[in-house]
Amino acid sequence: MNRKLSIAIVGVGKIARDQHLPAIAGLDRFDLVACASRNATVEGVRNYPGIDALLKGEPELDAVSLCATPHVRFDQARAALEAGKHVMLEKPPGASVHEVEVLREMARAAGRTLFATWHSRYSPAVEVTREYLAKHAIHSVHVRWKEDVRRWHPGQEWIWTPGGLGVFDPGINALSIVTRILPREIILKSAALSVPSNRQTPIAAELDFSDEQGVPVHASFDWRYGPVEQWEIEVETSGGTVLLTEGGKRLAIAGKPVDLAPEREYPALYERFQWLIDHGEQDVDVRPLRLVADAFLLGSHHAVEPFED
Amino acid sequence: MNRKLSIAIVGVGKIARDQHLPAIAGLDRFDLVACASRNATVEGVRNYPGIDALLKGEPELDAVSLCATPHVRFDQARAALEAGKHVMLEKPPGASVHEVEVLREMARAAGRTLFATWHSRYSPAVEVTREYLAKHAIHSVHVRWKEDVRRWHPGQEWIWTPGGLGVFDPGINALSIVTRILPREIILKSAALSVPSNRQTPIAAELDFSDEQGVPVHASFDWRYGPVEQWEIEVETSGGTVLLTEGGKRLAIAGKPVDLAPEREYPALYERFQWLIDHGEQDVDVRPLRLVADAFLLGSHHAVEPFED
Repeated sequence: MNRKLSIAIVGVGKIARDQHLPAIAGLDRFDLVACASRNATVEGVRNYPGIDALLKGEPELDAVSLCATPHVRFDQARAALEAGKHVMLEKPPGASVHEVEVLREMARAAGRTLFATWHSRYSPAVEVTREYLAKHAIHSVHVRWKEDVRRWHPGQEWIWTPGGLGVFDPGINALSIVTRILPREIILKSAALSVPSNRQTPIAAELDFSDEQGVPVHASFDWRYGPVEQWEIEVETSGGTVLLTEGGKRLAIAGKPVDLAPEREYPALYERFQWLIDHGEQDVDVRPLRLVADAFLLGSHHAVEPFED
Repeated sequence: MNRKLSIAIVGVGKIARDQHLPAIAGLDRFDLVACASRNATVEGVRNYPGIDALLKGEPELDAVSLCATPHVRFDQARAALEAGKHVMLEKPPGASVHEVEVLREMARAAGRTLFATWHSRYSPAVEVTREYLAKHAIHSVHVRWKEDVRRWHPGQEWIWTPGGLGVFDPGINALSIVTRILPREIILKSAALSVPSNRQTPIAAELDFSDEQGVPVHASFDWRYGPVEQWEIEVETSGGTVLLTEGGKRLAIAGKPVDLAPEREYPALYERFQWLIDHGEQDVDVRPLRLVADAFLLGSHHAVEPFED
C-alpha cells in the first residue's frame, strides 16, 4: 500500500463541514493535518488564516483541497501548485474558463495532479445511465433542475455577484452529469436568462442544445421552486424513458426502478484524487463551466422581478 | 511545388468581397472554383445557394473558407469536414466556445486541417512586438479599441442579437493580438459591460486582466467613438513604451517609429492555410473567444441609453 497523503482544506464553510471533512475522516489514505480559513477553525488540526500562511507553515504537505468560493480559486491553486502541492478544486473549478485552462497547464508543467471535481458525477445513477445510453438510440433529453434558492443558498451574497453564476451554480451540476452520460458532445443553440432587476446573475435559465447528431437537449434551471427540489434528467431512448431523479440518487428505466448503490459522492471524489496522485495524472474536464460561459455569451437577458433574500 | 488547391467561399458578404476574394485571386496556390451564398453570386465561378448544394456539386473541392456570420459557422464547418474538406474559419470561429473545441476534435478525427483565423494577428506590427516583449520586462498593458459602430457595421442587426458579441466583435481582434504578443497568459479579473437598454449585446466594455505574474492588463472597448477610430495597444516595458496603433499597422518603441512591412493580413492568412494543409496540421487557438465568453460570464451589466442604427 502507498503511504498516507497529508492534506489540508482551504475554505472552511458549509460544503467543507458538510462533505469534505467527513469524507476525509472516513478514508484511510488521507491524513488531514491543517486547515486555512479567514474566520473558521477545525478542531484537532493546525489552523491558518489563509493559504499563504498554510503553505509556509506546512512544507511537507502533499495536497490541498480548495473549498472557498470560485472567485479566489485561481490564486489559491496557483500558490499551491507553485509550492509543489497536488490540488483538488470544488466545483466550479474557477471563476472563468480561461483560468482553469491556464491552471491545467501550470499543473502539467509542475508535474502535480490537478483534479477539477464535479461531485454530481459520482452520484450512483450516473455510471449506470452512461452505460445504458451508450447502447441505445437517444431521441431527446430534458433536464429539470429546480430548487428554492433561499433553502440551498441562504444569505450567500456571492452567488448574485458577477461571476457568482446564479442559478447555474446548481445548474452546472446537471451539466456535469449530462456531459458525462451522453455519448456525444452537446452544442448550445440558444439560451434565455432571467435576471432579477436588482441582481447581476440569473435566477432562472432555459437552454437549448443539440448534440452532434442533432438530438435536442433542453435544460430548465429555476431557483424559484420548492419547497421540495426537482433535480431530474429524462432521456427518451430506443430502450424506453431513462429517468434520473434526486440529482442522481434514483434511476428508473421504462418505469422500473433500478437498484443503485448508496450515495457517497465525496468519499468517491477523494478516492479518485488519491488514484490520480498515485498515477501522476490530471483530471480537468472544463466542459460544464465552458457550457455555462457559452450560455452567458449566447443568452438573451430578461429582467424579472427583484429578488430579496 | 505542390499542386493547386481548389477552394470555395461560403458567405459572400462585405468581408468576403473586401478581403477574401482579392487575397485568393492574388495567390498562385489557390484556385477559387465556387461560392455559396443565399443572395449573392461571384462572377467567373460556380455559384450555389448554400453549403449543402456546394458540397454536393463540388465533390473534388479541397477546401472551404467560411465567411458567413458566426451563428451558422458550426453547422457549415461540420458539413464541410464530414465531406472531407479542409476548413478555414473567419473570426470569431464560432458562436460559442464549446462548439469550436468540438470542431477541433472533429477535424482531428477526420484528418483535415481546421484553421481558426485571427486576421489582426497578421498585421505587420504583431510579430515585431512579440519579439520585443519576449526580451523586456512588462510593467502594464493598456488596450484602447474604439470605433464608430455606424461606420464599421452599418445596418448589421446580427451584432446586436444574442451571440452577436456587440463591441467584442472588434474587441476580439485586440484580444487576438494581446494573446499573441504577450509572453504569459492573461486572466480576467473583472469586467463591466455597457448594454443599450434596447439591445442584447454591449456597446462598450471595460476589462481588467492580470497576467500570470500579476502584471495589469486593462482593455477599453467602445463603439461610440469617432469618426476616426482608435485601435491601440500600449505596453510599458523596461525598454520604454511600446505603442501599437492603427490595429497593428504602425508601431513606435520609446517614441521612435519602427519600419514595418506593408499590411497584407488576408494574403498571409491564406498562405498560412496552405502551409497547414501541406503539413497536415491544425491551427485552432480559441483563447480570444474564451476570454470574451469569460467577460460575459464575469461581467457586470450596466444599462445605457438605447442605440438606434
